[in-house]
Amino acid sequence: MNYDANFNPRVSDSEIFEAIKKEKQEIGYYNLPFQHTQKVKEYAKTVKQKNVAVIGIGGSTLGTYAIYSFLARTHDLDKKLFFFESTDPIDINSRIEKFDLEDTLFIVISKSGTTIETISVFKYLSSKVTIDKSNCLVITEDDSKLNNFAKANGIKTFEVPKNVGGRFSVFSNVGIVPLAIVGIDIDQLLDGCKESYLGYFEQELLYKRIMTKARFMAEYKHKFNNNVVFSYASELEGFNKWYVQLWGESLGKIDNDNTHQGLTPIGLLGPVDQHSFLQLIIEGKRDKTVTFIKVKDFHDDSTIPAIKLKGLEELDYINNLKFSDLINHQADATIKAVQDLQDIPCDTFTIEKVDEFNLGKLMYIYELLTSVVGKFLFINAYDQPGVESGKIILKEKLKQKK
Amino acid sequence: MNYDANFNPRVSDSEIFEAIKKEKQEIGYYNLPFQHTQKVKEYAKTVKQKNVAVIGIGGSTLGTYAIYSFLARTHDLDKKLFFFESTDPIDINSRIEKFDLEDTLFIVISKSGTTIETISVFKYLSSKVTIDKSNCLVITEDDSKLNNFAKANGIKTFEVPKNVGGRFSVFSNVGIVPLAIVGIDIDQLLDGCKESYLGYFEQELLYKRIMTKARFMAEYKHKFNNNVVFSYASELEGFNKWYVQLWGESLGKIDNDNTHQGLTPIGLLGPVDQHSFLQLIIEGKRDKTVTFIKVKDFHDDSTIPAIKLKGLEELDYINNLKFSDLINHQADATIKAVQDLQDIPCDTFTIEKVDEFNLGKLMYIYELLTSVVGKFLFINAYDQPGVESGKIILKEKLKQKK
Repeated sequence: MNYDANFNPRVSDSEIFEAIKKEKQEIGYYNLPFQHTQKVKEYAKTVKQKNVAVIGIGGSTLGTYAIYSFLARTHDLDKKLFFFESTDPIDINSRIEKFDLEDTLFIVISKSGTTIETISVFKYLSSKVTIDKSNCLVITEDDSKLNNFAKANGIKTFEVPKNVGGRFSVFSNVGIVPLAIVGIDIDQLLDGCKESYLGYFEQELLYKRIMTKARFMAEYKHKFNNNVVFSYASELEGFNKWYVQLWGESLGKIDNDNTHQGLTPIGLLGPVDQHSFLQLIIEGKRDKTVTFIKVKDFHDDSTIPAIKLKGLEELDYINNLKFSDLINHQADATIKAVQDLQDIPCDTFTIEKVDEFNLGKLMYIYELLTSVVGKFLFINAYDQPGVESGKIILKEKLKQKK
Repeated sequence: MNYDANFNPRVSDSEIFEAIKKEKQEIGYYNLPFQHTQKVKEYAKTVKQKNVAVIGIGGSTLGTYAIYSFLARTHDLDKKLFFFESTDPIDINSRIEKFDLEDTLFIVISKSGTTIETISVFKYLSSKVTIDKSNCLVITEDDSKLNNFAKANGIKTFEVPKNVGGRFSVFSNVGIVPLAIVGIDIDQLLDGCKESYLGYFEQELLYKRIMTKARFMAEYKHKFNNNVVFSYASELEGFNKWYVQLWGESLGKIDNDNTHQGLTPIGLLGPVDQHSFLQLIIEGKRDKTVTFIKVKDFHDDSTIPAIKLKGLEELDYINNLKFSDLINHQADATIKAVQDLQDIPCDTFTIEKVDEFNLGKLMYIYELLTSVVGKFLFINAYDQPGVESGKIILKEKLKQKK
């Protein structure tokens, strides 16, 4: 009797790559870098209001917030963006007080069109100020009930394509419409995405980096079940939150072997979290990978003045140091301390500068990485069946109350 | 030959309790609820400035921010509090623009007195506005170099006791001085702490709850290495951050058996994170415990108006619902969805209302819980040796540059 077997289920990089290329025909986010933006930019120019309020939650706001908050402090933008996400009444009312509702464009964003948080807040705001076609814009799927509402009231709409999931929708109309309105260069943003797209699909370096990292994440999913992103710039706080949704909601799934999968995303900010979470990384359980993100050029020359403080002379070595150099030295020192341990996997992205192009590039790499890890884990990275149960319980409870 | 042995190393609750009672003689935070606050309140009354800027990082600010941000939106406070934590130049400069530096009391807080972030920002602010004994206050250890600086310049100081660690210092002068200055009732806050202290040390219910939870955390530390706090109130965002430091930095240690220990804290906000991290909880790897925190009474009757939106009639069942009821129904629905899975350990705290007493009570419970888990893990919950290596690398680098 002859017997030959090969039970090694390990897939090759090229098999995964073929699967991604196939998936690219169906999953809409891949091709967003190549869309035409003319209509969006033309519409953006027509907006007269000084403020823009985005009403949405989750994938409808996190990416937009990530980009806006990265750029808003250093870019001279035309308008201010405000976000209404929560149903917390204290939160809603304190946000309302921050700007003039009468001079505001309200953008209601919901892919499905029936998101309970979004519609609740929209109704509430409608009782505070008249909202009609003159100060409202709707971004939703073409056949959603929210779209019907917009049509019935002559409100302008932009479409969310059916095959672009919420957490992958930042470069669709969901993100680029509000961003274009406030004056962010969406073409530069998409050019950054394009560079990552081409880097992965047509060049060697980024392809290898993404494949290697994704394979590592999947192959060590039990040992390193937590993936820390440690960003050394306060402006990346929004990026961290966007990453947490992208990674957590895409990869937290039941796989083809009916087993609970999931890599846990954790977002940290340096140097603040050196005084918080860092101790856990350095001495804690070896269950974490760490990705550092640095900003090379902050475009800010603020310097620690050469002031001598009586009693504190020992700290005079920080005098005349630029803050941008200090924070990057802090990042490098932490990176070295983690590397020296030799048993914590880590990598570092360095963003060239605080602009649209560089953030688009980084965010698109993270989208690709998430897709590839999903393939290695044999899961569907694009649905979220787990959150339905809670929604059904809530709906039943509220309907019973009526 | 007779042989009798008992290798079972499992400690009993009463052994742990005895160890905690012994530790209570040395570790300073335990007795903070019983301190006299007269001098702090008297000083607070003398502050004339409209704004208060806290310059500090980690344990010097996180607890104060947690309490201030929980209360500030609903309480009619006397002054506004601003925080300078980061060395990110864009962050520092954008904060400076938000208030009048000329009408500000600057509180420099550093336990050790030589925190590089704190002194850098202090020097920078000193170049923007004259800072002297008329508009400055220092909170530090009695023999620190920062204290020498204060003495040399006639600046008022409050002491941080040596035996109160940074992340356990919120109820010491570190927290109560700035909070009292802006008009927060620090006696109510400490009364909340007292209730938890007495509940644990002298009564049955809280003692059992803390012991059971801490034992579970320690006994399932490998299976459930992530501990999620899911707070259903935007006002608890600061509490979440404080929890992350307290839990991560206290428990991420090398134990008596020379093994890396550590439970990973994760802070989530409802309902927003239902649209982000929740999918990972529901379908992901069973490596998480979940603690829900609800607020029973938001003191806000804002209601979803009974507006009918053409096309969106199916959502009319939310009409006339208070937002405070909606958010709590959302919390309950998520709790039920998680409980129904039966393989995710979870518990729920319900805060009666948004006030000092209730938050003090909760935060002190978390401090006690952290101490007890530390005992079960055979680690020192009060030091942070892991962060030293990075500090040394940074210092050498900066000194070389000079």
